[in-house]
Amino acid sequence: MRQSKLFPKTIKIAPKDATSASHKYLVQAGFVDMLQAGAYTYLPLAWRVITNINKIVREEMNAEGGQELLMPALQSRSIWDETGRWDGSLSDVMYQFKDASGKDLGLAATHEEVVYDLMRKFINSYKDLPLAVYQIQNKFRAELRPKGGLMRGREFMMKDLYSFHLTLEDLNGYYQKMIAAYLRVYGRCGLDAKVVEASGGVFTDNFSHEFQIVSDAGEDRILYCDGCDFAQNTEISKLKAGDKCPKCGLPIKEGKSIEVGNIFNFGEKYAKDMNGYVNDAQGNKQPIWMASYGIGISRLVATIVEKYHDEKGMIWPEAVAPFKIHLISIKKDEAAEKIYDQLVAAGVEVLFDDRDLSAGAKFADADLIGLPWRVVVSEKTGDQVEVKKRHQTESSLIALTELLDQLK
Amino acid sequence: MRQSKLFPKTIKIAPKDATSASHKYLVQAGFVDMLQAGAYTYLPLAWRVITNINKIVREEMNAEGGQELLMPALQSRSIWDETGRWDGSLSDVMYQFKDASGKDLGLAATHEEVVYDLMRKFINSYKDLPLAVYQIQNKFRAELRPKGGLMRGREFMMKDLYSFHLTLEDLNGYYQKMIAAYLRVYGRCGLDAKVVEASGGVFTDNFSHEFQIVSDAGEDRILYCDGCDFAQNTEISKLKAGDKCPKCGLPIKEGKSIEVGNIFNFGEKYAKDMNGYVNDAQGNKQPIWMASYGIGISRLVATIVEKYHDEKGMIWPEAVAPFKIHLISIKKDEAAEKIYDQLVAAGVEVLFDDRDLSAGAKFADADLIGLPWRVVVSEKTGDQVEVKKRHQTESSLIALTELLDQLK
Repeated sequence: MRQSKLFPKTIKIAPKDATSASHKYLVQAGFVDMLQAGAYTYLPLAWRVITNINKIVREEMNAEGGQELLMPALQSRSIWDETGRWDGSLSDVMYQFKDASGKDLGLAATHEEVVYDLMRKFINSYKDLPLAVYQIQNKFRAELRPKGGLMRGREFMMKDLYSFHLTLEDLNGYYQKMIAAYLRVYGRCGLDAKVVEASGGVFTDNFSHEFQIVSDAGEDRILYCDGCDFAQNTEISKLKAGDKCPKCGLPIKEGKSIEVGNIFNFGEKYAKDMNGYVNDAQGNKQPIWMASYGIGISRLVATIVEKYHDEKGMIWPEAVAPFKIHLISIKKDEAAEKIYDQLVAAGVEVLFDDRDLSAGAKFADADLIGLPWRVVVSEKTGDQVEVKKRHQTESSLIALTELLDQLK
Repeated sequence: MRQSKLFPKTIKIAPKDATSASHKYLVQAGFVDMLQAGAYTYLPLAWRVITNINKIVREEMNAEGGQELLMPALQSRSIWDETGRWDGSLSDVMYQFKDASGKDLGLAATHEEVVYDLMRKFINSYKDLPLAVYQIQNKFRAELRPKGGLMRGREFMMKDLYSFHLTLEDLNGYYQKMIAAYLRVYGRCGLDAKVVEASGGVFTDNFSHEFQIVSDAGEDRILYCDGCDFAQNTEISKLKAGDKCPKCGLPIKEGKSIEVGNIFNFGEKYAKDMNGYVNDAQGNKQPIWMASYGIGISRLVATIVEKYHDEKGMIWPEAVAPFKIHLISIKKDEAAEKIYDQLVAAGVEVLFDDRDLSAGAKFADADLIGLPWRVVVSEKTGDQVEVKKRHQTESSLIALTELLDQLK
């Protein structure tokens, strides 16, 4: 894509209220724009990142048998009254209102009730189990204090998967598979996630598992061990920093972290609340067991920026970068046009800065936007190109064919 | 995909209130499920159709320079007060409510105000124009009488593109290009759309252009000519059936039709209402001209079914079908498993009916779901397969390699 056509241009001045690198850079580089507190437009560059993340998420959910669907965000009260969440734990975070006829409506903050209703309608036999369905969708939560940027919003993108089982044993096995799938998702996005024991919050009385990324920009605090996989949210932990790890005995650490996912083993709660039962092979009535698994897609975008940036801007991991290459022509000339055409023909995703600007302005934009590879064409590059990875300081002159080899 | 795992199974009995083929078959075949009047879950089979349609839509929008983004559905009143639509023409169709702090919020029924706000914020130079952005998103409309199925809902999927121009001339040129792009979209979905002059409705005082598919299941009535491209919505036409076509002189026809798209040339309306101006190359202040272009994605799904079905079920055009092939094994045997593996390895999208059911039950499901190719493996097919296209009555025995050739 030609940068002269890209909407919008980068902004000179960072937002005044930005307290985190992700908020600052995502706004300044033209990735997102705030419509109102907690509600952002994903502009084309952020949309490309989200598309890449969603592709990874879909691949890993599909690999565990997840079937994609899309449920309505607009929901009637009756379904939420069955579990008592309309007036209960969700009443503070759910947008609730009446339509013209006086009927109570709510905007989905989560989908357990709706998906369970679907299951009790369609699951008629033990042969229909196990089953996993998921969706990627904007969710709504009436946050009193939304955080700037994509960290905590009133409208945000989420992937939510729900799994259904004939036995607790089967549920527990799938729950472990999904933990592994989540770690693959974060790993492919360049993040090292910790699996953390946590409270079930408004969702369940049991412990849940959070996926946390250690970061000073986080709002959570976790206790974790560098020697093993022990990790607990401080909200529920009886330990403190320096205590011995209950798993391996090393002293545990405490740190701030960003929650990028949360999974809940509801067991037979929904079967009881919403009357979801099915006969097993022996003809005995069994509850349809459920667990739910969420990933905050838009928060993940911000988290990646928190982990990958420097004082000049963002540094996107290749798997999620909006484009692979930032091609910069120092002077408007034929050579750069030709290389752009060759890169596009080779199927490489390239942002071509074809604008009539100084080299300094172009380099500053490239550092801010943070594409993995910067490729410069100038009078002195001859029939080669000047290549630098975003995190490197030194560039090197190589032939285009060599660059294409390295990109593979 | 194995049909034994597909969620959900087909339903024996059609919904009682179904008055159209699309409503009946989409529910019965397990493509959609109603959560409440006007709000449907897109189940995995419908989601696959939608994914295919959206791919076509993205390709054609991108081909005309459209840049994809995603704007919030949750919007504050202030932006709508600028054009007077909060209390005006949109007040009846927009869900409006207050948050806990008493602030007025609305759910997006359309996005002209929000996108224009984005443009006046970011367009600083005539060099930033022309520009086109689009999104694919669930929209909300407080329909008093939603229609069964996907035809008219309270939550529905829409593609909306907005284009911005320095001059009316440039806008008019792009408007024509977008008409051509829309006709390509419908054509690739198997639909023959008519471009129909219509009222601007709640959107503009000017005429708009609708894209209509002639169908008895439609709620609109249009006058059209078989000899040329003349077409008008009866709402605005001064003609009647049998009158001479004003373009070519042939007698015009009247028929019911389904509106699958609508485009609006707003001219400088938004520039005036929302103060959107930019200097041209000569330094003269010019309005930022806007047009908007919508396609009802979920309605398109229903429309395709209205055009392509028979008394047994749906008949999906190849480009949008949820799977290309319905592979049916008459008896559970190795041969069918092997052919399934070969089709998957060849990259063909195949639904494999591996269930322990009678041939009759499997054929009935295949006719209902309506995949383009039915491929049967039985004791009598030997090392060949029995192939029939959904709309054909006679099948033929061919080798698998020949089938793969035909699929190309």
